[in-house]
Amino acid sequence: MIGKNDVVVPLDVPERMRREYIKNYLKITRESGRLMLFAGDQKVEHLNDDFYGNGIHPDDRDPEHLFRIASQAKIGVFATQLGLIARYGMDYPDVPYLVKLNSKTNLIKTSQSDPFSQQWYNVQQVLDFRDNSGLNILGVGYTVYLGSEYEAEMLHQAAQIVYNAHQHGLLTVLWMYPRGKAVKDEKDPHLIAGATGVAACLGSDFVKVNYPRKEGCDSREIFKEAVLAAGRTKVVCAGGPSDDVEAFLKRLYDQIHISGAAGNATGRNIHQKSLKDAIRMCNAIYAITVEDAGVEEALEIYNSDHS
Amino acid sequence: MIGKNDVVVPLDVPERMRREYIKNYLKITRESGRLMLFAGDQKVEHLNDDFYGNGIHPDDRDPEHLFRIASQAKIGVFATQLGLIARYGMDYPDVPYLVKLNSKTNLIKTSQSDPFSQQWYNVQQVLDFRDNSGLNILGVGYTVYLGSEYEAEMLHQAAQIVYNAHQHGLLTVLWMYPRGKAVKDEKDPHLIAGATGVAACLGSDFVKVNYPRKEGCDSREIFKEAVLAAGRTKVVCAGGPSDDVEAFLKRLYDQIHISGAAGNATGRNIHQKSLKDAIRMCNAIYAITVEDAGVEEALEIYNSDHS
Amino acid sequence: MIGKNDVVVPLDVPERMRREYIKNYLKITRESGRLMLFAGDQKVEHLNDDFYGNGIHPDDRDPEHLFRIASQAKIGVFATQLGLIARYGMDYPDVPYLVKLNSKTNLIKTSQSDPFSQQWYNVQQVLDFRDNSGLNILGVGYTVYLGSEYEAEMLHQAAQIVYNAHQHGLLTVLWMYPRGKAVKDEKDPHLIAGATGVAACLGSDFVKVNYPRKEGCDSREIFKEAVLAAGRTKVVCAGGPSDDVEAFLKRLYDQIHISGAAGNATGRNIHQKSLKDAIRMCNAIYAITVEDAGVEEALEIYNSDHS
Amino acid sequence: MIGKNDVVVPLDVPERMRREYIKNYLKITRESGRLMLFAGDQKVEHLNDDFYGNGIHPDDRDPEHLFRIASQAKIGVFATQLGLIARYGMDYPDVPYLVKLNSKTNLIKTSQSDPFSQQWYNVQQVLDFRDNSGLNILGVGYTVYLGSEYEAEMLHQAAQIVYNAHQHGLLTVLWMYPRGKAVKDEKDPHLIAGATGVAACLGSDFVKVNYPRKEGCDSREIFKEAVLAAGRTKVVCAGGPSDDVEAFLKRLYDQIHISGAAGNATGRNIHQKSLKDAIRMCNAIYAITVEDAGVEEALEIYNSDHS
Amino acid sequence: MIGKNDVVVPLDVPERMRREYIKNYLKITRESGRLMLFAGDQKVEHLNDDFYGNGIHPDDRDPEHLFRIASQAKIGVFATQLGLIARYGMDYPDVPYLVKLNSKTNLIKTSQSDPFSQQWYNVQQVLDFRDNSGLNILGVGYTVYLGSEYEAEMLHQAAQIVYNAHQHGLLTVLWMYPRGKAVKDEKDPHLIAGATGVAACLGSDFVKVNYPRKEGCDSREIFKEAVLAAGRTKVVCAGGPSDDVEAFLKRLYDQIHISGAAGNATGRNIHQKSLKDAIRMCNAIYAITVEDAGVEEALEIYNSDHS
Repeated sequence: MIGKNDVVVPLDVPERMRREYIKNYLKITRESGRLMLFAGDQKVEHLNDDFYGNGIHPDDRDPEHLFRIASQAKIGVFATQLGLIARYGMDYPDVPYLVKLNSKTNLIKTSQSDPFSQQWYNVQQVLDFRDNSGLNILGVGYTVYLGSEYEAEMLHQAAQIVYNAHQHGLLTVLWMYPRGKAVKDEKDPHLIAGATGVAACLGSDFVKVNYPRKEGCDSREIFKEAVLAAGRTKVVCAGGPSDDVEAFLKRLYDQIHISGAAGNATGRNIHQKSLKDAIRMCNAIYAITVEDAGVEEALEIYNSDHS
Repeated sequence: MIGKNDVVVPLDVPERMRREYIKNYLKITRESGRLMLFAGDQKVEHLNDDFYGNGIHPDDRDPEHLFRIASQAKIGVFATQLGLIARYGMDYPDVPYLVKLNSKTNLIKTSQSDPFSQQWYNVQQVLDFRDNSGLNILGVGYTVYLGSEYEAEMLHQAAQIVYNAHQHGLLTVLWMYPRGKAVKDEKDPHLIAGATGVAACLGSDFVKVNYPRKEGCDSREIFKEAVLAAGRTKVVCAGGPSDDVEAFLKRLYDQIHISGAAGNATGRNIHQKSLKDAIRMCNAIYAITVEDAGVEEALEIYNSDHS
Repeated sequence: MIGKNDVVVPLDVPERMRREYIKNYLKITRESGRLMLFAGDQKVEHLNDDFYGNGIHPDDRDPEHLFRIASQAKIGVFATQLGLIARYGMDYPDVPYLVKLNSKTNLIKTSQSDPFSQQWYNVQQVLDFRDNSGLNILGVGYTVYLGSEYEAEMLHQAAQIVYNAHQHGLLTVLWMYPRGKAVKDEKDPHLIAGATGVAACLGSDFVKVNYPRKEGCDSREIFKEAVLAAGRTKVVCAGGPSDDVEAFLKRLYDQIHISGAAGNATGRNIHQKSLKDAIRMCNAIYAITVEDAGVEEALEIYNSDHS
Repeated sequence: MIGKNDVVVPLDVPERMRREYIKNYLKITRESGRLMLFAGDQKVEHLNDDFYGNGIHPDDRDPEHLFRIASQAKIGVFATQLGLIARYGMDYPDVPYLVKLNSKTNLIKTSQSDPFSQQWYNVQQVLDFRDNSGLNILGVGYTVYLGSEYEAEMLHQAAQIVYNAHQHGLLTVLWMYPRGKAVKDEKDPHLIAGATGVAACLGSDFVKVNYPRKEGCDSREIFKEAVLAAGRTKVVCAGGPSDDVEAFLKRLYDQIHISGAAGNATGRNIHQKSLKDAIRMCNAIYAITVEDAGVEEALEIYNSDHS
Repeated sequence: MIGKNDVVVPLDVPERMRREYIKNYLKITRESGRLMLFAGDQKVEHLNDDFYGNGIHPDDRDPEHLFRIASQAKIGVFATQLGLIARYGMDYPDVPYLVKLNSKTNLIKTSQSDPFSQQWYNVQQVLDFRDNSGLNILGVGYTVYLGSEYEAEMLHQAAQIVYNAHQHGLLTVLWMYPRGKAVKDEKDPHLIAGATGVAACLGSDFVKVNYPRKEGCDSREIFKEAVLAAGRTKVVCAGGPSDDVEAFLKRLYDQIHISGAAGNATGRNIHQKSLKDAIRMCNAIYAITVEDAGVEEALEIYNSDHS
């Protein structure tokens, strides 16, 4: 448990917005200092691939599934596009939201063209939307593809988003992905440490990266470089595409307790399950991330009223 | 029949504009919750190909034909460019209009360059035009080519258009077409479901897509994926290029009653006919879409006073 | 002769500017509803090729030649760049002017790069210039290259120019030229009809196109498609590069009386002559276009005091 | 000698700025109607190539050399970048300055990429700088590369610069250089006449071009085409790279008295000399340009106290 | 020691900001007229390469290391990104900061694409940040890659940054690096002199360049060309990648006392050491740059309490 005196407010948050920032920080981390982010931006990023097909529960075909999970399960924040929030928010007013400000489809491969994901809204529009809707919007997110030929524009947009979000007390999460013709190994631990360092220089509160992987190395150990390089910017990480719940939870636990990560960002491993299973999966992840549970305890939560 | 309490107003419509949105929504769907969109933007999109040539009635050579149909037939809304509305609107003041905000010609093929269709006007200009003209402008439309190398810019423009239209109570229709060198099969049902999902994330009220087609599959069945993926964004669909009126009406009926579509967007199948036939064709389509008629009943309307 | 009640004011002209629009419309058409446009923008478009060389009268080497013609001959409007008007307007204050808002040189061929002609001034600057100078500026012009890889930007600029010009009661002429690697035959009648249709969708008052040409066809007949496709947007056309005055006048007459064109835009056929001949050429063209003269009568005017 | 009644003020100079324009015009031409422009923008355009090396006097290694010349010699105006003026102007407050608004280095050759030189400051910033500094800033300059693939953007910037400079009574000089893969012969007299004609259409007060050269032709004669094509825009010209002072002065004299040029723009032929020689060179050039001296008289000035 | 009367204030600093500029100038040069810049922008420029690996002290893995050095050692100014300053500034409030306004990663090599580094914040945002945070922000920095295909945009941004910084009394440092496919030898002394000359034309207070290197030449001598070409813009230089402290300090001393440089910009040679060593390295560099120490004296400082 952390309190308002534990929050280090960055200096681009003006004096009059410090209370707002602290309030949002405590809410988004559920007073744990750690972030459990439920990622629901894939309907653009992966089109319908993550929502329909083999091994995906039919509940996931309807976008409302995401909101049902977010409202019934324990989460830190639910990240998705503003347009979707605008359509469902009236029925899910208590969900803590984070507006993902850019998205692109997966149709163009890097071999054709380097990735570029353009900002859809400015921060002021998010604030107006928050105030008009009364929704619980705690922060904004943005993806940067480092090493893309469009890197310059994305770094500029990211810098402006963090600056303007902080000007109004909103939190920021940057998805930092090295990607493009110039990037040989997206999972290289040294490169991922570079990515978290860039997020630190951009002043983001949180940075989401892929879990590093290197032949002959223990991912838990090599991930430490990235956590260190991020400095005061907190690192969150996906658990990977594993279908095995126990392995998934173990990995999250180790990312936090061995590598030093401050949470996780999980999408498909949650919403591709039935509503019931998805809720228990969320709760198990939440237990490890926010409630400081061990793997066994979390697994019990997942299995609790499993039929 | 739906009433004002049945309209789910998205949260990017500010409080003071809710009544306006509801009013426009009921008008555009003719209190049916379904949309019959008469599409008349092809004079840019297809140049004169759709208006002159074999099998096209001479009535269609003059752009006023579109306005005559729109004013004399039953339709939900007539979608075309602002400039054309500005020239004919004084003589057709009662037509419900939707301003198509971007258009491109068909001269450049995808093999030469990926498609890009740029926004012509901003939403404020449409509002000023509506207020100055006193015309019945209910919404705005915009085309996004997913998978184009210009996708990023079009997604940005689409997001801004939906946001700003909703800020002022206007409705939105997005034409979502996967197109570009990266797109192998524009009619693939899974890809079209991706497209409707993107429209949902952009917060659009309606999304227009092509009717999916897949070898060995029933289009009516595979279209369901797209309707589900769209969530609360309503899906409208073209009936295809068929010349046979009965087959055309049957297809529309099935799109609504089997696949779950919320209407249709039809252009050439209407305006390439003589004024008289075009009106009856509209009325038949309208009967199925808005008045819940069956195919037989609609066909009767089409054939009613056929000479 | 038309009067103020015959002018159909487009609806993007606000109420308070209707009188201004009507006044400008009557002036530019000399109360005939037809437009005789003296085109003088070639010093950028063709550099010095049209002003110096074999078969070009030495009078044409000095740009003031254009102003001398415009002030001494009968014309509807003189179209040229703002900078040139700014330098000579004080000595030719009674000329009716149309400011051509974009221009490019002819140095880059389509085989190297598709054509792009960028807007030089915005409409507000033209209005300020008009008000400061007291000149008789009736409208603005802009060229769109349909089928160019830069088409999207030019369509956007054209839409904004027409909208903003109409907002202040100015008239608009769009030069619509299909050109670019994607365009095989710039004179194809069906393509030119597409071009006039696009101008109609952009809401322009007048559209200037090239006279169509198709093997085995009568240009006068095939041009009708374009006039029809333009709807209420009036079509003006060049007479072609002919050196024979009688043939030239005959062609103009037929464009109006057979094809249905509403005037002409002529440059080189006027200004490459001596001042005296240029004036008589203008007057002959004007007679056909505005004064409803026949070819013989016009030819007499041209030959009147020929030495 | 000309007086304020001899200045033809272009109509994009508003009424209230006519006095300012006339004052600046008389100053920059030293009441002669001709322009002696000392060009000192090469530290960007040619990097250090013009300031250090064989045949270049060591005085030229320090940029202050340019200011020493400008302040001690007779000149019409000294053209250089704003940043340099800001650093030395306090010690050279009486120099008449012209701010060159764009510059590029010579590192990229046309074979790699067509030239693009971007505007550095807007006209308002120059005005603010003038007013804050109290310096004697009479005008602004800008380079356009006609035939470059970036021509459209440079024509737009040039049009805006001339318009905005005139709005505030500043004079303008356009450097018009045909250059790019599409340009075969930059010195072709007909092409250079095209370039001066474009400057006229842009409304510039002065246009600087290269002296034309054509096998078998007398440059003095073929240059007349460009002077004529420029109309009321005055043409200034470089004297070329000659090391022979007499030949250089003779050429300037002929450009003015045979071809009809209105002055010259000279850089390297001045500043690559020692301060003393540079001053006498300026004075000699000035004598021909502004004081209507003959070549002999000018040469005497150059040789006056030569040691 | 210099005083406020020794500072030559450039004329783009308005009257009311002269005191502020002088104050900042004396602070950043520690009243020596020379600049010791501690460069800490490499977490973006070189990702984690400079902070983790062989020969790099583990202290350097955490970005706070940079702030610890900057606060405990003697420096002129610490240059890094705004986001990082925002995260650590509250604990290091006395450090003199310079905000580096653009940065790019090193992932894309010149062989793939010419370098482009985009501005992240405008000057006004830096001023607001300074005022909100109460931090000691003395200036801004920006990198220009001369000879890159994106040179035009970077020159424009640099010109605007210098102008706007001076408008508010902030100092400027430009990193001028010739780089791109057109650049054969980035260390060529004549080219580097070109680069400092461009910085002078942009009006920057300081310019940072690489130390020139040419076969058979003494770098100390050939560097003089660049110092001369810079005029009143002061030249600072890196000491190079040497691991030998004495050689490093000797080189700095010679750059100042032989070549005429006005300081140095050093990063890796400081922060890749342990905190203790880094502080002594800073102090040694500072002694030479600011305190006019000789190499021996500086080396003594470095070795003072070395264990």
